[in-house]
Amino acid sequence: MDTAKTTFPDPKMGEPFLLTPGPLTTALSVKEAMLRDWGSWDGDFRAMTKSLCDQLLALAGDVQGDYACVPMQGSGSFAVESMIGTLVPREAKALVLANGAYGLRAAETLRVMGRAVSVIDKGDYLPPCGDEVARALDADPAITHVVAIHCETSSGILNPIPEIAEAVRSRGRKLLIDSMSAFGAIDLDVTRIPCDAIVSSANKCIEGVPGFGFVIARMDALEAAKGNAHSLSLDAHAQWAAMVKTGQWRFTPPTHVVAAFLEALRLHAAEGGVAGRGARYARNRDVMVAGMRGLGFETLLRDRWLSPIIVTFFTPAHPNFAFPRFYDLMKAKGFIIYPGKLTVVDSFRIGCIGRMDETIMRRVVAAAKESLAEMGVDDATPPAAALAERNRLAD
Amino acid sequence: MDTAKTTFPDPKMGEPFLLTPGPLTTALSVKEAMLRDWGSWDGDFRAMTKSLCDQLLALAGDVQGDYACVPMQGSGSFAVESMIGTLVPREAKALVLANGAYGLRAAETLRVMGRAVSVIDKGDYLPPCGDEVARALDADPAITHVVAIHCETSSGILNPIPEIAEAVRSRGRKLLIDSMSAFGAIDLDVTRIPCDAIVSSANKCIEGVPGFGFVIARMDALEAAKGNAHSLSLDAHAQWAAMVKTGQWRFTPPTHVVAAFLEALRLHAAEGGVAGRGARYARNRDVMVAGMRGLGFETLLRDRWLSPIIVTFFTPAHPNFAFPRFYDLMKAKGFIIYPGKLTVVDSFRIGCIGRMDETIMRRVVAAAKESLAEMGVDDATPPAAALAERNRLAD
Ligand SMILES: Cc1ncc(COP(=O)(O)O)c(C=O)c1O
Ligand SMILES: Cc1ncc(COP(=O)(O)O)c(C=O)c1O
Repeated sequence: MDTAKTTFPDPKMGEPFLLTPGPLTTALSVKEAMLRDWGSWDGDFRAMTKSLCDQLLALAGDVQGDYACVPMQGSGSFAVESMIGTLVPREAKALVLANGAYGLRAAETLRVMGRAVSVIDKGDYLPPCGDEVARALDADPAITHVVAIHCETSSGILNPIPEIAEAVRSRGRKLLIDSMSAFGAIDLDVTRIPCDAIVSSANKCIEGVPGFGFVIARMDALEAAKGNAHSLSLDAHAQWAAMVKTGQWRFTPPTHVVAAFLEALRLHAAEGGVAGRGARYARNRDVMVAGMRGLGFETLLRDRWLSPIIVTFFTPAHPNFAFPRFYDLMKAKGFIIYPGKLTVVDSFRIGCIGRMDETIMRRVVAAAKESLAEMGVDDATPPAAALAERNRLAD
Repeated sequence: MDTAKTTFPDPKMGEPFLLTPGPLTTALSVKEAMLRDWGSWDGDFRAMTKSLCDQLLALAGDVQGDYACVPMQGSGSFAVESMIGTLVPREAKALVLANGAYGLRAAETLRVMGRAVSVIDKGDYLPPCGDEVARALDADPAITHVVAIHCETSSGILNPIPEIAEAVRSRGRKLLIDSMSAFGAIDLDVTRIPCDAIVSSANKCIEGVPGFGFVIARMDALEAAKGNAHSLSLDAHAQWAAMVKTGQWRFTPPTHVVAAFLEALRLHAAEGGVAGRGARYARNRDVMVAGMRGLGFETLLRDRWLSPIIVTFFTPAHPNFAFPRFYDLMKAKGFIIYPGKLTVVDSFRIGCIGRMDETIMRRVVAAAKESLAEMGVDDATPPAAALAERNRLAD
């Protein structure tokens, strides 16, 4: 499929591109799908829900029909909490593999709901690897579930899910994957990656608008999960059971957001599915990173860990550089970038996802160049100490 | 304000009116507000969030600045759970005043999160009244909070919140009000109704699209609620604290739904606020109920308990009447009605809320008349036994 032929409608005059991890720049046709109202009880809307679930299961590679798709109202964090709270029994123990904000949030989610949890925290630069997961599981037989983050969006690191999944499977434990920012652009096929559940949301790589997430879970795991949940609203088992029985969401669905998502799924398929989408994002990243490096910027991560989702850059050392001003200058040129979310070093992020291609990425780099000039920054190189620390930690 | 001058754009060809308790028929301009993407971190969107909260607080009559507005992602049930889980401490006890599905759901929400709860269950026909609440509170000093439903949407009954609030206040307990289907159309002014919190959602009487709810809570109650919540995502204290600090939602907001809601608030104000909106809905109800009674239909409730939100009708006794067929015939004529949600008698519902006026309601009645004819039902009178039971219970 020739994605160069896909049209990328320029947003309306004055509407900036969102170079963020979501909400994203979406296609106009995705937004136009929201121009009508649906009754949530009506057959037409039930058919929409079914189509949404069927398509997501196909994207996850569920050829054998072992999995169910459970959409969940709210943001991605709500869906993560729903997955964890429903599938980790009250007396079980979870191991969270953290290397950034979203891993730490998953651990906090478990703590708030009173579940036993231990954490492998790798900091900001490195992924958890299969070996250390295996060792942790061997050392603590109480651990029943492992929670892994696919792309840790706070740094943009792509974690090695296949080797993690293998370590978990071989120890007879269960894997729950937060693939929020990766699902739909990076392969995650349940026939190859043994896992009990995957979670993602409407406004990431499928390029819908925000308002719901979804849990794709093994049906036997869902069946066994009745009564586990700590919350009525976030009970994925109850949502699933209601959907099986009535074809409806248990509580009012975000009907317009669902309609937009169906159009987004159509565009996703037209682009060649996960492979096509992932290829465009990878080109976006390559063009953008090369251009930014040309200006002196440097990435937080080594190339081999850079995801095609979002890239973290060190804040330049130059005394004239100030992120809030850089943000405003970029926004004035039509590009919304994203602040950093790291604990230690100063950074900012530029997303590669959303309805944008490499021509837009070239304009992003040009805008960054102009913005630096306007700030009187002639070199965007990071502080030497930050680079040295990265090099020390990341080897 | 002359609401007769408000235009009610006919939905696109083939798009039915939603005579339901939400999602509703919304104005085209509300949906058109979703035709762009916003960055959730950006200043423009933060200003939208602030405006939304300020306008909701004004609608609640918070002239003294004692309350805060905490929007919450998800459907209305999520916001109810957020309000209850955040404001009822873990060791406290709640009394739920139930007379239908939503009161029972609030009690279930408390049970799932492991809070102590007792219930006054009035069945489907009658409201809980001040006296019996006072007696229940006198009898059980362990009760710290009372949860009341403003309009119990499952029957359409309008509960007497002022006398309930007075009973709760005079006993030194705290009141939490689920005003999901009433807020914005029925007066609920916090300077006159003493309460710790009110909850509603985007897609009811403000006529936005579904995707978030909001808790309007006393600030001192919110301050005292840190650490109460059973859930990370549904923690209204944490959401509030993050908003105060950063102006942002804690997790990704449904940006398009928020934009639609701001346009819905503008239309609400243009119609004359709560009074104007409530008056239109009351006319909708009066025209629709009179017309339906003319066909033989009868309401579940006595006139004095009929809300201007939604009306429940008994299923006719005539052997040719079948609700699924009636639903399809009405839909074919452009009107989506709603099934009943009662435990005992067979019923269906017709909503009075959404972007519709009395001319539409006359067309609804005409469509019902035609549909009856097509079914071969010459009289829509309910079974005598159902009416007798209603009369026995409701006196
Ligand atoms: C990996 C990951 N997990 C969880 C979340 C939380 O999603 P949300 O912001 O929609 O709550 C995000 C959001 O970017 C994410 O990237
Ligand atoms: C009084 C009341 N409470 C709670 C709810 C639940 O809201 P939702 O369906 O958005 O979860 C409703 C929905 O109609 C309602 O009318």
